[in-house]
Amino acid sequence: MSEKKIPVIIDCDPGCDDTAALLLAFRCPELDIRGITTVSGNVSLEKTTYNALRVTEAIGSDVRVCPGADRPMFREPVYAPHVHGEDGLLGIGLPAPQKKASFYKAWDFIYEEAVAQKGELQIIAVGPLTNLGIALAANQDLAGMIKRIVIMGGAAAGGNVTPCAEFNIYVDPEAADLVMRSGIPLCVCGLDVTLKAYLTAEEIAGIKALGTPQAELFGAVTEQNCEKIFCPEGAPLHDPAAVLFAADESLFTSQRCWMRVETTGSITRGKTVTDCYSDAQKEANVDLVLDVDRERFAAKVREIMERY
Amino acid sequence: MSEKKIPVIIDCDPGCDDTAALLLAFRCPELDIRGITTVSGNVSLEKTTYNALRVTEAIGSDVRVCPGADRPMFREPVYAPHVHGEDGLLGIGLPAPQKKASFYKAWDFIYEEAVAQKGELQIIAVGPLTNLGIALAANQDLAGMIKRIVIMGGAAAGGNVTPCAEFNIYVDPEAADLVMRSGIPLCVCGLDVTLKAYLTAEEIAGIKALGTPQAELFGAVTEQNCEKIFCPEGAPLHDPAAVLFAADESLFTSQRCWMRVETTGSITRGKTVTDCYSDAQKEANVDLVLDVDRERFAAKVREIMERY
Amino acid sequence: MSEKKIPVIIDCDPGCDDTAALLLAFRCPELDIRGITTVSGNVSLEKTTYNALRVTEAIGSDVRVCPGADRPMFREPVYAPHVHGEDGLLGIGLPAPQKKASFYKAWDFIYEEAVAQKGELQIIAVGPLTNLGIALAANQDLAGMIKRIVIMGGAAAGGNVTPCAEFNIYVDPEAADLVMRSGIPLCVCGLDVTLKAYLTAEEIAGIKALGTPQAELFGAVTEQNCEKIFCPEGAPLHDPAAVLFAADESLFTSQRCWMRVETTGSITRGKTVTDCYSDAQKEANVDLVLDVDRERFAAKVREIMERY
Amino acid sequence: MSEKKIPVIIDCDPGCDDTAALLLAFRCPELDIRGITTVSGNVSLEKTTYNALRVTEAIGSDVRVCPGADRPMFREPVYAPHVHGEDGLLGIGLPAPQKKASFYKAWDFIYEEAVAQKGELQIIAVGPLTNLGIALAANQDLAGMIKRIVIMGGAAAGGNVTPCAEFNIYVDPEAADLVMRSGIPLCVCGLDVTLKAYLTAEEIAGIKALGTPQAELFGAVTEQNCEKIFCPEGAPLHDPAAVLFAADESLFTSQRCWMRVETTGSITRGKTVTDCYSDAQKEANVDLVLDVDRERFAAKVREIMERY
Repeated sequence: MSEKKIPVIIDCDPGCDDTAALLLAFRCPELDIRGITTVSGNVSLEKTTYNALRVTEAIGSDVRVCPGADRPMFREPVYAPHVHGEDGLLGIGLPAPQKKASFYKAWDFIYEEAVAQKGELQIIAVGPLTNLGIALAANQDLAGMIKRIVIMGGAAAGGNVTPCAEFNIYVDPEAADLVMRSGIPLCVCGLDVTLKAYLTAEEIAGIKALGTPQAELFGAVTEQNCEKIFCPEGAPLHDPAAVLFAADESLFTSQRCWMRVETTGSITRGKTVTDCYSDAQKEANVDLVLDVDRERFAAKVREIMERY
Repeated sequence: MSEKKIPVIIDCDPGCDDTAALLLAFRCPELDIRGITTVSGNVSLEKTTYNALRVTEAIGSDVRVCPGADRPMFREPVYAPHVHGEDGLLGIGLPAPQKKASFYKAWDFIYEEAVAQKGELQIIAVGPLTNLGIALAANQDLAGMIKRIVIMGGAAAGGNVTPCAEFNIYVDPEAADLVMRSGIPLCVCGLDVTLKAYLTAEEIAGIKALGTPQAELFGAVTEQNCEKIFCPEGAPLHDPAAVLFAADESLFTSQRCWMRVETTGSITRGKTVTDCYSDAQKEANVDLVLDVDRERFAAKVREIMERY
Repeated sequence: MSEKKIPVIIDCDPGCDDTAALLLAFRCPELDIRGITTVSGNVSLEKTTYNALRVTEAIGSDVRVCPGADRPMFREPVYAPHVHGEDGLLGIGLPAPQKKASFYKAWDFIYEEAVAQKGELQIIAVGPLTNLGIALAANQDLAGMIKRIVIMGGAAAGGNVTPCAEFNIYVDPEAADLVMRSGIPLCVCGLDVTLKAYLTAEEIAGIKALGTPQAELFGAVTEQNCEKIFCPEGAPLHDPAAVLFAADESLFTSQRCWMRVETTGSITRGKTVTDCYSDAQKEANVDLVLDVDRERFAAKVREIMERY
Repeated sequence: MSEKKIPVIIDCDPGCDDTAALLLAFRCPELDIRGITTVSGNVSLEKTTYNALRVTEAIGSDVRVCPGADRPMFREPVYAPHVHGEDGLLGIGLPAPQKKASFYKAWDFIYEEAVAQKGELQIIAVGPLTNLGIALAANQDLAGMIKRIVIMGGAAAGGNVTPCAEFNIYVDPEAADLVMRSGIPLCVCGLDVTLKAYLTAEEIAGIKALGTPQAELFGAVTEQNCEKIFCPEGAPLHDPAAVLFAADESLFTSQRCWMRVETTGSITRGKTVTDCYSDAQKEANVDLVLDVDRERFAAKVREIMERY
C-alpha cells in the first residue's frame, strides 16, 4: 500500500472534527483525494457544503465538492449545533469561498469515480451515511466496485447523542445498515477508539504554535472539545481518526466482527450492535477498530500539520 | 451493615451458576436467607424448582422454596440447555429431594416477607426478573418496602445470548424494565463485571480438593465453564458475583448511572442501555457494577467454601 | 343460556359509557353480577373506583367494588378527560358514596370468583385489560377457569384515540395481547359494531322522559356523545354494547377470526389486527362482533331502562 | 382533463393484474403512456422486465421499458409466485420479446420525463414503490414536478399478504412511506376499492369471446383469480382499477384523509394507516379511493378491450 497513492473520496458534514480531518487528509502523502461529498449531519447540507468549500480553500485545494443528501433516507434531519455551532464551524469566521459546489450529486460522483478507479476507490465516511445509502440503492453494481470504506461512526459500547448511539449512525440508521449489509469491506472507527485518539491541551497548543493559518484553524476547531466528561484527558479527534486509519492503519488495533445497526428500538435507535464473543457467533463483516497507539497517533497528527 | 444479618430472598433459576451462588450464599455470615423463589429461565420452572429443592438439601438447609412464573410476563419462554444441560444441572445426578415446594407463590412470598421485614428486605435476583415484575404489578406498594435488589443481569457492553443482550434480561425484558423503573435501589452485576469475576482452573480444582460434598458440587457446576472464548482465563461466576456483592460490596467497583431495558428493537431485545457519559445525561437509577478485585473475590469464594 | 343466570364480573373504568353499561347490566335479567372491578383508564383508578361506588349506589346495588391496577402493565397511564370530564362523569354531580371499595384486589377477586363459579364465570371487560393481564400473569391456572370474556375494545378498521387504535386497547396493548393469547373464549365488540350501536337524540330523550333518577343519569352520560363526526346519526353506546352482547347475543352478528394486538409499531400501537380473509389464514381465537340489529338494540336498551 | 392526453409512466411488476392494467392502459384514449418502469415485486426484476417487454409487444407498442430496483430500498425481496406463477404470468407462454429493456434506470427516466413534461407528468404505480422512493431520495426537486401519483396499494381495512397489509406496500414499506410524505398529490386505490372492482366470471368470458389475442391474454391473466374467499363474486382487478381511476375518476368515490405506512410493527409491517375520523384529526395527504360504480367499471373495461 506504499508507492501508489490511495484514491479516496471524503464523505463528510463539516463540522469541527470534519474540518480537522480535511486538514490532515490533504497532507497525508498516502492519500489521493478525488473529491469531497457533503451531507446533512452536524448542520444542514447547505452549511456543510459551504463549510467544505471554505475549508478546502483555506487548505489551498481546488478539489471538487459534491453536495449530497439534505436529509436522512427515511427520517427527519437531526443536527448538532450545540457541538459545532449554528454555522457548523463555531462561528470562527473563515472567509466566504470563491469556488462553487459541483453540479454533480454526491451519489453520481461516487459511482463514476468508482468506475474510473477500477476497483481501487476507497471512501472515508465521517458523517451520516446517507450519500452512500442512496448511491448503493441507485446503483446495484456499486458495492462490487469499492475497495473499502473507512467509517467514523458507532460505538461497540456507549454512545454520545444517546446512551447507546453515536451521532453519525443515529442520524441515519437505515443508510448505515445498508452500508453494513452491502458486502463492501468496512473498517469502523467508533467511539471505542476515537475517545482514545485524543490530543492533550498541550499538544493542541503546540500545533497552534506552528503559526500557519491551517494550524490556527486546526486548533480553533479542536480545542473547544477538550477535557469533557467523556474524555477528560484531552480532545478526541473523531473524524481525523478515520483519516489516519485510512493512511496508516499500523497506528490502530482492530478486531474482525459482525456489525449491524438497530433501526427500530425504542431506546436503541442507531446502536451499532457488534458480535465480539456472544453465543450467536455471527459472520464477521467489519474490522472494528478498538484501540490506538495514542503517542504515535498524536505525533503523526503533528507531523502532518507541520507540512503546511 | 455488620452485626445484623441482611434478610434476603434469592430469586433464581438453577442452573449451574445459580447452584454455585446458593452454595456460597448459605455460608455467607452476612446473609439471612428467608427463602428461595424460582422462575422459568435456564430451564423450565418445574426443573428450576426441583433443582432448588435438591441443592438446598445438599446444602443441608430446610429453607422454603416458592415457585414463581412458568414463563416471562409477556413472551414465550427461552431456555439455555446448551449451557446448563437438559435438567439444568448438567445431569450430575444429585439425589431427588425429600422436601416439597411451598404452596406460596413467589410473588406472594416476596410481598409478605417485605412486609414482615419492615423495609429491610433485600432481593438477590439471579434469573429472569419475572417474579419481581409480577410482584410489582400486583402490589403497588411493594416498591417502597424493598431495601435493595442486587441483580445478576445485563451488560453495559456486549452480551451472551445475543451480541448485545445477556440471558436473564433477554428472556423477560418487560419484567426487567419494570424493575428498572420501580424506584427500588438497584445494584446491577452484568457481564461487564461477571466476566472478570472468574476462578482459574487451578482455583476450582483447589476448592474441589476440599473434599466436602458441597465442594464437589461447586466444582461440578463450575469447571465446565472454564476457558471459553468470552473468558479465556477461567470460569466466570455470574450468579455468585451478585451474592458476594450483597454480602461484601467492598470487593467491587461500581458507578451510578441510568439504566433501562430495550423491549422492542429488532436486534437489541433485552439490551440494558446505560448512560455513563452521553450527552443525554439521564438521571441515575442503578449502581452499575463494573469491576472486581479478582484476587480478593477468589479468596473469598474459597474461604466461604471452606466453611462446609 | 336461559333459566340460569350468567355469573359475571364487570371490569370497567367509569367513565360515561361505563356508567350506561352498569345501569343496563343491573337490570338485565340474564346476568348475575358478582362484582365490579375497576382499572385506570378513562380517568385514574382512584376516580374510576369512586365513580363505580357512586354509580352502583345510584342503581341501588350493594355489589362489591374491587380496585385493580393504577397504571398499565408496562406503560405510563393515558386518560381521556376530553371525553369523560376531569372526574370521569362530566361533573354531573352524583352524591358521594356511602360504601367503601373492597379490600380485595381486582385480580384476586377475579381468581377466587372464577374458582367459586366452577368454570361458569364470564367477564364483561369494558376498560383497558390490565386487571385481566395481571390476573393471568399471577395465576397460571386462571385461563382454564373462565368461560368467556366479552370485550369492548379495538377495531378491525379505524380507531378513535389514534387513526388505527381504540382507546381501551391502546392504553394497555400488552395486557390486551396477553388476553388475546390466553386461550379463553373471547367475544370482541370493537368500534366496528359499537359505532353502529347508537341511540338517536330522540331515543335518548325518550329514555330521559322515563323520569327515574337512573334514566336521568343514563341520559346525562349519553347525550353528550351525540352526532359527532364518527357517528353522525346518534350517540354510540360502546360499553353497553358489550353488556347487551353478554345478555343477548342474538342482537349481533359476528365472525370467527384471529386477533392479536400490535405492541411495538411506530403508528400502530394498540391496533387489533384481525384476519378475516388474508392469505395468512391464521387460526381463529375470537368472535369478532361486526354488526348489530340497531332497531332491536335500541328497543332493548329502552326496555331495560324501563325496569327502574 | 379532456382534450389533452395525460402523460403517464406506468411503474409496475407484471404480474397478472399488471398485465391486465397494461392491456387497458394502452387503449385508454385519455392516457399518453411515456414509458414503463419495472420493479422487483410479484416476481424478480429480471422477470417483471421480461414480462413488461413481452406484454407491450403483445399489445403492439414499442414503448420504452426501463428496469428499476431489484430489491426494496431497505429490505430483502418478497415475491408472490403462488399468485402469479414462477414466471409472473402463470406460465401462459407469451412469445419472447424482440425488443430490449432501456439502458435508462427507472428513477432516471422518471426524473427526466418529469422535467420534460413541465409539471404535467402523472405516475400510475401498481407495484412496490421502490423506484419512486429511490427517485425521490436521489432528486430532491422531483416531488414538486410530478402532478399526481395514482397508487394501487394498501388497505384502510384488512390486507392480503398479512391480515393488515397489502402486498405492494408490505414489500417496501419504507419506500411507500417516503411517497406518502413527499407532498406529491396522491390517489390511493387499496383493497378497500379493488376488491369491489371485480369482473364476474361471465364478464371475463365475454371479453375472451372478443377473440383478439389481447382479449385472450386479458382473460388468461384474470380468470384464475375468480371467486376466491376475499371476493366471492368475481375476479378483483387490482392494478386495472388504478389505470381506470387515472383515466376516468368519475367511476370512483374517494375521501380526503391522512395516510402513513407502518414500517416497524411486529405484526403491522406495511399497514397503510388512514385517519378517516379519529380524535387525532391529522392533516389529509391522499385521496383514499373507497368505492366504485362496479357496473360502469365493468362496462368500461369491456369497452376498452373492444378497441383491440
